[in-house]
Amino acid sequence: MMDKRFFGEIRKVNVLELAAACGFKTVGERDFLISGVAVLKDATKEDLSFFGNRKYLQDLKKTSAGAVIITEKNISDLPKGVVGLIYPNAMIGYALALNVLCPTEPHLPRICATAKVHESAKIGSNCFIGENVVIGENVEIGDDVVIGHNSVIEKECRIGTGGRIRNNVVISHSIIGNYVLINSGACIGESGFGFIPTGKEMIRVKQLGRVVIGDRVRVGANTTIDRGSIEDTVIGNDAVIDNLVQIAHNVHIGERSILVAQVGIAGSTRIGNDVVLAGQVGISGHIEIGDGVVVAAKSGVASSVEAGRIMGGIPAVDAEIWKRQAAFLKMSVVKKKTT
Amino acid sequence: MMDKRFFGEIRKVNVLELAAACGFKTVGERDFLISGVAVLKDATKEDLSFFGNRKYLQDLKKTSAGAVIITEKNISDLPKGVVGLIYPNAMIGYALALNVLCPTEPHLPRICATAKVHESAKIGSNCFIGENVVIGENVEIGDDVVIGHNSVIEKECRIGTGGRIRNNVVISHSIIGNYVLINSGACIGESGFGFIPTGKEMIRVKQLGRVVIGDRVRVGANTTIDRGSIEDTVIGNDAVIDNLVQIAHNVHIGERSILVAQVGIAGSTRIGNDVVLAGQVGISGHIEIGDGVVVAAKSGVASSVEAGRIMGGIPAVDAEIWKRQAAFLKMSVVKKKTT
Amino acid sequence: MMDKRFFGEIRKVNVLELAAACGFKTVGERDFLISGVAVLKDATKEDLSFFGNRKYLQDLKKTSAGAVIITEKNISDLPKGVVGLIYPNAMIGYALALNVLCPTEPHLPRICATAKVHESAKIGSNCFIGENVVIGENVEIGDDVVIGHNSVIEKECRIGTGGRIRNNVVISHSIIGNYVLINSGACIGESGFGFIPTGKEMIRVKQLGRVVIGDRVRVGANTTIDRGSIEDTVIGNDAVIDNLVQIAHNVHIGERSILVAQVGIAGSTRIGNDVVLAGQVGISGHIEIGDGVVVAAKSGVASSVEAGRIMGGIPAVDAEIWKRQAAFLKMSVVKKKTT
Repeated sequence: MMDKRFFGEIRKVNVLELAAACGFKTVGERDFLISGVAVLKDATKEDLSFFGNRKYLQDLKKTSAGAVIITEKNISDLPKGVVGLIYPNAMIGYALALNVLCPTEPHLPRICATAKVHESAKIGSNCFIGENVVIGENVEIGDDVVIGHNSVIEKECRIGTGGRIRNNVVISHSIIGNYVLINSGACIGESGFGFIPTGKEMIRVKQLGRVVIGDRVRVGANTTIDRGSIEDTVIGNDAVIDNLVQIAHNVHIGERSILVAQVGIAGSTRIGNDVVLAGQVGISGHIEIGDGVVVAAKSGVASSVEAGRIMGGIPAVDAEIWKRQAAFLKMSVVKKKTT
Repeated sequence: MMDKRFFGEIRKVNVLELAAACGFKTVGERDFLISGVAVLKDATKEDLSFFGNRKYLQDLKKTSAGAVIITEKNISDLPKGVVGLIYPNAMIGYALALNVLCPTEPHLPRICATAKVHESAKIGSNCFIGENVVIGENVEIGDDVVIGHNSVIEKECRIGTGGRIRNNVVISHSIIGNYVLINSGACIGESGFGFIPTGKEMIRVKQLGRVVIGDRVRVGANTTIDRGSIEDTVIGNDAVIDNLVQIAHNVHIGERSILVAQVGIAGSTRIGNDVVLAGQVGISGHIEIGDGVVVAAKSGVASSVEAGRIMGGIPAVDAEIWKRQAAFLKMSVVKKKTT
Repeated sequence: MMDKRFFGEIRKVNVLELAAACGFKTVGERDFLISGVAVLKDATKEDLSFFGNRKYLQDLKKTSAGAVIITEKNISDLPKGVVGLIYPNAMIGYALALNVLCPTEPHLPRICATAKVHESAKIGSNCFIGENVVIGENVEIGDDVVIGHNSVIEKECRIGTGGRIRNNVVISHSIIGNYVLINSGACIGESGFGFIPTGKEMIRVKQLGRVVIGDRVRVGANTTIDRGSIEDTVIGNDAVIDNLVQIAHNVHIGERSILVAQVGIAGSTRIGNDVVLAGQVGISGHIEIGDGVVVAAKSGVASSVEAGRIMGGIPAVDAEIWKRQAAFLKMSVVKKKTT
């Protein structure tokens, strides 16, 4: 639930004003003050809700919400008396509405007394640097950056404007763009898995590359992104990376690509733009995944994939074939049982 | 091995006294002072051991232990001269015995001078707050809580009586019950993976829910539990969660459910009571897993599962069918080879 | 790219001097000063490069590098005017060359003022102990050890000579050998997943073992290694463990074994020497994996495996059979489609 202790009170806004602010068309023009936000089944008549997933159609038909953000085609499913706020994509509409109702709390610009900021580091204006943060030599941090408690930014790193680095994050050997969010516990720029087994010993190979992260990237909690071995590890603009993801040395992730939790990508692989890797997917090293490829959860991709394909299975094949394989297996076993 | 540098000396207790304290029946009533604890193959005649897994039957038959905690049916496997301490579940018996022999070292109630505790926070009696801990505004911490070094508890969080929060843990937007153990590096309450791709950009959706954790829950090292997007993420009483587990926004985990290491659960899924998810299992979003369901290691569950079923495979099917599928595949290949 | 801000300038060395220092034979004896290191496709005529993976053969044939480390059999693929530096294993040659060109920056021996080192702890000579590090009672740390910022080393732990412990690492109940690297965020020695479900509650079993790590071991970022429950968790000499790996209580890992990212090993399993577990592999508890076993990425090993076998699949079978199973499935579906 939206607990005002954590998020403060929402701004109370008249439903028609909200519609005007967000560009929603409306149906059922009851006029009221929105005083809360809730899912369809929990919402009361003072609340705003949204219909973003067909699994909740029954909840929509029975909702007591005051207003629901919805697409054109589901208007007829709205119960009587509920205001419909119509937008081409209900989830985007919901995100826009939250920006009006729950504006981000401003942070206090402050460098905590326990932070150790190297005298050569440059910190932009309006930054918050948390307790026990360690910032090394020649680090450059842009304006409006928030760095959580107990995080470490090692020497020479750059963090662009508007960065949000949460608590206990470690960043080294990294150049990070603007408006990047890095959640707690992430480790960016550690040395990659570089060694050669000789049979008698493991010879470590020095890891001399960097991590280069674009603008508006999102990195999840406890995710690890190793620095390049000699080239860079590169994360494109607007990529979103979930929790506990592993990105090995020299990997490139394209723009707007989505890596769901616990994905792992082996060294030197190139992931194109607008790729979707669902949860727990693994991608082998030294291959190329084309633009727009989608890989089903838990799949293992062992060789390069052309742009636009939808893949599944271990090793991954076209998703359609993968589904037929599963169906074939199911049938074979059923037959075996009945004969 | 049990190294007294780490755990101190065990309390030396007479074997019959121990039996009385724990409710063990005994066979072979040799009287001696237990002075150590060891596995069957390493135990000497001053040691207590236990037989909790049939894989170690040969070790039982040859053990030199002074006494072995055992169930009724394995009495005849005890070597001569070894005291049998009989209990309906040997592993529970062993846990009870350890509580007598190795009482938990009391912690020193103390707030370290380097901890930054907000003046509005309420800390219960008999708490230990470690070095460099940061505790935010209006946090409430119960009695007898231990918070390890370098952990961060953000504003308004609650931690109940008897909590054990280890080192470098990050907790935000969370209400946590009594006697909860959170191992080092866990991140509880970070913002979930909420955004909408428009093709041109990623629109972030504000994450306005909480994490609500019941009593006696156990959370493993470097595990991540995201806060709800608008509803709460909920972990039921007595749930046990291993290391490196990912729990996405809005997930509910039932009471006494067991999530083994590296399990991942996608957003808004409901897991019932007494569910067992073995290692590296993945569960899709927006589905329901009924009470008592068991899922085999590495399986992927893509749709809702009724209570009581045992599942395996990717996508998961009834475990019996999954085993027959594996057998069918094995045979098909063998046939192919011989023909 | 190799950014001198992070790694300093490379030592400029004459190519023939480098060959002499590393034991390379040479072809095309142009004499020049090496002033950079780059991959084949990016290297200029002042740069050193290497050919370590056949996937980059086209890059080799077109490279503009000044010199390339290479094996005997690819000499004929070198473009004209490029010096060949011949070594039996090009990657090892490259590692040796980096040791000459990019000597490790010496660390400043220093205990930061914000570090809390218990008065009973013994710190060797020439150590660096970072900001906000907490070192407990009776800890012993060898010579030339570097401990990064915000790390915690709990009471009685040992860390041998030359250890490199990065930032935000947590170590407890552990005995660690010489020249061990532990990357940021790793948790070594937390309590294992020990409890017994009774149906009504979860009885926690005290975890009384240790973690014992050999010499020259490498542990990746955010990896978790739980201490033993009563025996020890043991990592053999020269084992290399990648990021986000889970090693449960009582596991033994043999010497020189390689655990790629996101591998998970369940409790009490024994992994032999020279084993390779590729990314995201899962190994069941209480089994034995023989020396030299190789397991393909994403496989799940459910029972013991004899030495020397190559395994794949879920559940894992001989890799050859696994490949035939995949081929059989593929064909079955194609047939089904055409009939």
